[in-house]
This record gives sequence, structure tokens and C-alpha cells, in this order.
Amino acid sequence: MSADWFRRRFLPRGPLPAPRPPRPRTSPVPYRRPRFLRGSGSSSGTNDASRRPDARPVRSPVRGRSLPWNAGYAEIINAEKSEFNEDQAACGKLCIRRCEFGVEEDQEWQTLCSEEFLTGHYWALFDGHGGPAAAILAANTLHSCLRRQLEAVVEGMVATQPPMHLSGCCVCPSDPQFVEEKGIRTEDLVIGALESAFQECDEVIGRELEASGQVGGCTALVAVSLKGKLYVANAGDSRAILVRRDEVRPLSSEFTPETERQRIQQLAFIYPELLAGEFTRLEFPRRLKGDDLGQKVLFRDHHMSGWSYKCVEKSDLKYPLIHGQGRQARLLGTLAVSRGLGDHQLRVLDTNIQLKPFLLSVPQVTVLNMDQLEPQEEDVVVMATDGLWDVLSNEQVAWLVRSFLLGNREDPHRHGSCHPPNLKSKDQGM
Amino acid sequence: MSADWFRRRFLPRGPLPAPRPPRPRTSPVPYRRPRFLRGSGSSSGTNDASRRPDARPVRSPVRGRSLPWNAGYAEIINAEKSEFNEDQAACGKLCIRRCEFGVEEDQEWQTLCSEEFLTGHYWALFDGHGGPAAAILAANTLHSCLRRQLEAVVEGMVATQPPMHLSGCCVCPSDPQFVEEKGIRTEDLVIGALESAFQECDEVIGRELEASGQVGGCTALVAVSLKGKLYVANAGDSRAILVRRDEVRPLSSEFTPETERQRIQQLAFIYPELLAGEFTRLEFPRRLKGDDLGQKVLFRDHHMSGWSYKCVEKSDLKYPLIHGQGRQARLLGTLAVSRGLGDHQLRVLDTNIQLKPFLLSVPQVTVLNMDQLEPQEEDVVVMATDGLWDVLSNEQVAWLVRSFLLGNREDPHRHGSCHPPNLKSKDQGM
Repeated sequence: MSADWFRRRFLPRGPLPAPRPPRPRTSPVPYRRPRFLRGSGSSSGTNDASRRPDARPVRSPVRGRSLPWNAGYAEIINAEKSEFNEDQAACGKLCIRRCEFGVEEDQEWQTLCSEEFLTGHYWALFDGHGGPAAAILAANTLHSCLRRQLEAVVEGMVATQPPMHLSGCCVCPSDPQFVEEKGIRTEDLVIGALESAFQECDEVIGRELEASGQVGGCTALVAVSLKGKLYVANAGDSRAILVRRDEVRPLSSEFTPETERQRIQQLAFIYPELLAGEFTRLEFPRRLKGDDLGQKVLFRDHHMSGWSYKCVEKSDLKYPLIHGQGRQARLLGTLAVSRGLGDHQLRVLDTNIQLKPFLLSVPQVTVLNMDQLEPQEEDVVVMATDGLWDVLSNEQVAWLVRSFLLGNREDPHRHGSCHPPNLKSKDQGM
Repeated sequence: MSADWFRRRFLPRGPLPAPRPPRPRTSPVPYRRPRFLRGSGSSSGTNDASRRPDARPVRSPVRGRSLPWNAGYAEIINAEKSEFNEDQAACGKLCIRRCEFGVEEDQEWQTLCSEEFLTGHYWALFDGHGGPAAAILAANTLHSCLRRQLEAVVEGMVATQPPMHLSGCCVCPSDPQFVEEKGIRTEDLVIGALESAFQECDEVIGRELEASGQVGGCTALVAVSLKGKLYVANAGDSRAILVRRDEVRPLSSEFTPETERQRIQQLAFIYPELLAGEFTRLEFPRRLKGDDLGQKVLFRDHHMSGWSYKCVEKSDLKYPLIHGQGRQARLLGTLAVSRGLGDHQLRVLDTNIQLKPFLLSVPQVTVLNMDQLEPQEEDVVVMATDGLWDVLSNEQVAWLVRSFLLGNREDPHRHGSCHPPNLKSKDQGM
């Protein structure tokens, strides 16, 4: 993404073009259940959704009946609010090969990799909105982007310290010292690869949705286990936690219009054109009305973490850039998250105001050193979208996980069936 | 500061104007020692600097001789590097009166306040650069800005919860609930007042320096004790810590080109004009040279907290926006801090590239609840500029403070002479 691109994309010169009519809908993006759930369910009454791309693969359990183990993904989510399933997941082995310069690779990561050089494991959750297309594309694509990004730097990852030049040759004798002084470690290359992979995947989704006349966006929460470390990358309001016997450790932070208020207000301060005169960038405790005119009311602007009072002017009565509280908080009255993939075409209803410039596709990445952690059999990583965290706290989820594991000690499948050690991804239906 | 102002100020249309010749220097800004040190020193050989504004009020103690107690400010700082003393401090009682609308107040805060409504205490450190003018202006002005900002919201500060309307009247019956849901507390008004006071002071310094043809900037570290809470506001690379018997607690974070890399790179991404084609916004472990062309080297851009490799192009050989490491890190090759007051005229040597758009005058504010802390007699807040923290760690400073207090238990003046309870400000000379 370049500055020119940013301007061309978001700051049209001259009068704003009329909103584009929606393109005729072509075929939906191919839908499939994540590989790790195919055929593994013991849930009676569940259709094989992968064979019926047009049908809504959602079933709610009979009231009072407990959810069958491994029901997990797709069976009960989204409470039949949408025609298609907007939530997706992916999971698999990540095979990273040495990159041969000039050789193009386009094999899927599920393929048996005879030349594999490093292997890891990948789990991902995508909470879609405005249709399932972005989430499905992300579930089908992000791992490939990540593999490509990792393969581009893998030579640096296997060194004790990443070399200044990927080729390993030293142009300047002090190069290792410069790298040392910056404190650049192998794990920074994985973090960089995750950051770039999210951006690349976002661009792919933008192109694909535009080409097929579809719309939508999704959050993305990814966990990667690689070389003794667990990397958790999050863009959106999903959350990952590590549940241990005596500890619950958050592995991600949520990105919403509220948590990213200052970044969003700052952009509107620098580029007021993005609000097209329809919104105020200031935050007030509630939307102001005519009776507030001339009064001094609580407010805050982009540079403030505290609050102050200002005398209300007519322009303050506009709809706020960020409005509402908690689960109701919305960016431009439209979106509940401030990071994620897709949404390239999303506009405020009946206007030409675009959401995308305020959204970031970049994740925040946290790193857990599993070697230092001395993992135990009962350690579990829980990854879930806001559907779970809106109703249960970290501690409640930890209690449920611990109780389940304790009550099913003898079940060899209690951590799932095809997973690497003790890491289980769960969707919002728990 | 408005967006228009930002554009007018930093993004001139058409060809860039030639650098302005320096204006003829008029009289220097009046210099004075901070009130709390006047006449208090027992240090022999110290001139009364306030009577000799043109002389450099700096004395170094004879080697091997210990520093006289209360020498503190101005006697040994800056190691005779500059002609005038670039480091300043201020300390005093803060008297906040109820604001009568329409009545202009211009009395100094040191004045006896018969109508005082709330009182607090104020300590401040200003580490100047490029001349003493900004630091002196800040020491003479910031407390007045803060008093004004606090008086503008004092009605809201004395309520249990700040009212939506400063007048206290409810336009909407649910107003208290909206304020409650946003979690707005009295202390947020003090934080907001500190943030606004720093901005106001920065504007005053800009106007004053331009009018008197002077230049320079300074960092600002402020502690305010008010209504049972200690507020520490920091813009720059100074630091405050709380030293207790069994604990050393940092009360501020440093803002340098390194700690604010992503914010600074982001601005250069959005407004590449600010670099005038002379700098690259990308970070590399060292400055690149011709031999690196075409090689894949470590880099990171504004959206990355990790690192990746890129193929070096000609434009990557430009001087980096942020260059150097640790104490040597510089913004645009010029400045070691990324927040502070002043520097409105500062340009990169021999160019028209301005530093100011990359600098923030907004402080980060931390709050310490002194009532919950149960302060003890030996608790001390140490405020110091980078001159101290470059050579001593928090723990070493804590050890020195504890040793001194323990060795001077019987001295009734061991916490200083004219200070409120147990809070002492120190400059970089300790």
C-alpha cells in the first residue's frame, strides 16, 4: 500500500461520484467446512454443509440438550441471523520450504511437502459481517499468504540472529552489531511475516470481492505454533486466552472503535474530507441535540485521553464518528470493529463515505515462549469471537475448560482428535 | 489547533519558500531561578543567577567534594556545554478559583488567593535544547495555563461525577447515565486540563519566540498533587519515579524517536511531502549505502512491529527519518525527543524541512491515588531529565534516595525546606 494508493483510493478530487449501484450477484465464493471438522462430528441432525453451498449450514440444538462434543464450528453460530454462515475457521499444518529465488510456488499448504524445511501449526477464526464472502476467502487464503511471507524470510529465521542481508554476506563488517543493537530477534521475522500476510490477504479479498461483485468483511484471529513459540495475531474483536491450572493469560487485545478512538479521530483530524461534512470527529457522552447548543458539555478530541468541556456549536450536532457504548459502539454508525480484512466497498448507508480508510488490516501480534512455559497436558488455548466473550468472562471460560477436562480425564479425545499438543480452537458457540 | 492550521502551517502549496534568515536577536527572555531555590542554597561560590541574565549561572563542584545539599537546580547542570542554562524548573502552590464567566483573570498563581476554591501543588522540569528560551518560557507559563484550564472545569471537578453540562442542568434525564457508562471520573477532567495546558503553553511559546526572534524547544515533566491524587504529565524523555521502602514505581514513560517510531513513520506515510524527498521513512538496522543496492536487507515500515526483508532500491539510500540507536537516535537527524514544547521554527540543517509536524506537545498523564497508597514519610518522588537516567537506573536512584534519608534521619530538612509532604523535585544533577 503506498501513499499514492491511499490518496487515489480515498481522496477523490472534484465532486464525489454517485454511489455505485450494486453489481449483479454472481456465484457465491465456494464454501467449505474447515478440514479439521470434516467427518469428525458425532452431532446427529447435522447436514454436511460442504456439499450444499447454497444452504445455510446452521442447526440449533434442542433446548435443554447439551451440545455434542466437537459440534464446535458452524452448527449453532450466528443464531440464524443471516442466510449464510458469516463465521469461518481454518486449521492445518504449515509447511515452510526454502525459497528458491525465481521459482514460483503455488501449491496448497495441505499438500504433502517433501522439501519442507520448517513446520508449524496454524489455527484461525474469522468473524464475518455484511455477508460470508470475506470470511470464506480469508479462511481459504490467509494461510497461503503467511506461508509465502515466511518462506520469503526463512533463511533469516534459521540463523541465531537474523542477518542484515538475507543472503548472509556482510557488506559492512559491523552489520551483526547493528542488528544486535536494534535487538532484532528471529521471532521479529515471524511477527513481520504475520503483519505482511494480513495485509496481503486483505488485498486479495479486495480484488476477489470486487471481481465477483460481492461485499463484506471479517475479523481475523490467528495462532501459529512455530519453533517453540506460539504467535497470536489479532485484527478485530475476537480474543485468545491461555487457560492453565492456576492461571488465565490473555493472548490478544480487542480492536474496536472504542479501543482505537484516538487513532481514528486523528485520521479524521488530518483528513476531514473523509467525513464529507456529515460526521463530527469529537466524542461526547451522548449524541447532542438542539437543546445543547450554547451549553458547555463534556467532550474529547484526538489528542485527549482525559475529558474537558466545550461550548456546543452547530457542527457538534452532527452524527459522531464513533457513537455508542460497549457492544453498541459503532464506527461511522456502521461497523463494530476497527481492524479486520475486507470491507473495501463498505460505505455509510445512503452516502459515499467509505469505512476502509479508518480500518486497519494490520494485526497486533503477541508471542508466547512455550519452551519457557513448560506446558502441561491441561493447558488449553481458547480462541473465540465476540459471541463468546460478550456473554462469558475469561475466568468463566477457564472454569468451563478446566471442569470439562477434569470430568473427561479418561477420554483420549478430550482435546479434540487431530490436533497437535493441547491447543484447541473454538468458535463462538463454545 | 485545527486541520486547516495544520495544512497552512506545514504544507505550503507551490514552491517551498527559501529558509528565513534569523531575526536580529532582541533581549533574552527574562531568566530567573525557580522560586523554591531562591536563597535556599548553602553552596558557596554560587552567584545569584537571577541578577545576571547574561551570565551563565553554572558552577561545577570541586572534584572529590560532595555536592552541597539543595544545590540541586542549575549549579552543575549541562556541563558547560551551552552558554546559557537550557534546563529549568518550577514549583509552587496551585490556587484554583471558581470561574466567574466573563471575568478575565490574569493574576500570577503565586499571589495570595483569597477566593481560592481548590488548592494543589505543582512541580515541573523542562529540559531545553537549541537555547534556553523555550524552557524559560515554559517554566514561567505552564502553571498559568494549567490553572486556567483547571478553573474552566472546576465546577465539574467538585461533583462526585462530572455532569454532562458544566452548568449542572440536565437537558436529557439520562445524562448522568451516559456519563456513567463512559466511565468519566473527576480525574479525567484533570488529565484533560493537563493535556490542554501543554498545548496552550506550546502555542504561547511559539508566538513569543517568533515575536522575539528566538528559537528552541524543551521537554516537560510535570507533577500535580490535587484532591488526594498525584498526576504526572510527561512530554519528552524525562522520567518520574516513586521510591518507597520496598518498591520503585515508574510514574511516566519516555517519548523518543525510537519509542514513537510507528506514529512518526505513519505521518510520513500519509504526508510524504513533509520529508521533501530528502529522507526515507523506512527503518533499517544502519544507514544503507551503494553496496547494499539490489540486496535483501532487514527493514520495517509504519505498520510493522516485527521486521522483514526488502530488496534495496535507490530511494532507500536516503537519510532515514529516524536514525541511530538509544541515546544517539535522532528524528530527521536533528532531535533526540519526539514530544515537547517549542521548536516551531526548527528545521533540518540547510533545508526547509520542519521538525514540528512530527513532534507532539501532548503529554501522557498517569494518575497515582495517594489515598489508596497510604504514603509513608520515606516515600519520595524523583523527577529528573535524561541526564540522570542515562547514567543511573531507577534502582540505583532509589538506593541513593533511601541511603540518604536513612543517613539523615534526624535532619528536619532532609526532604527539602519549603515543600509540601515528601515530594521533592530534582534536576539532572541529582
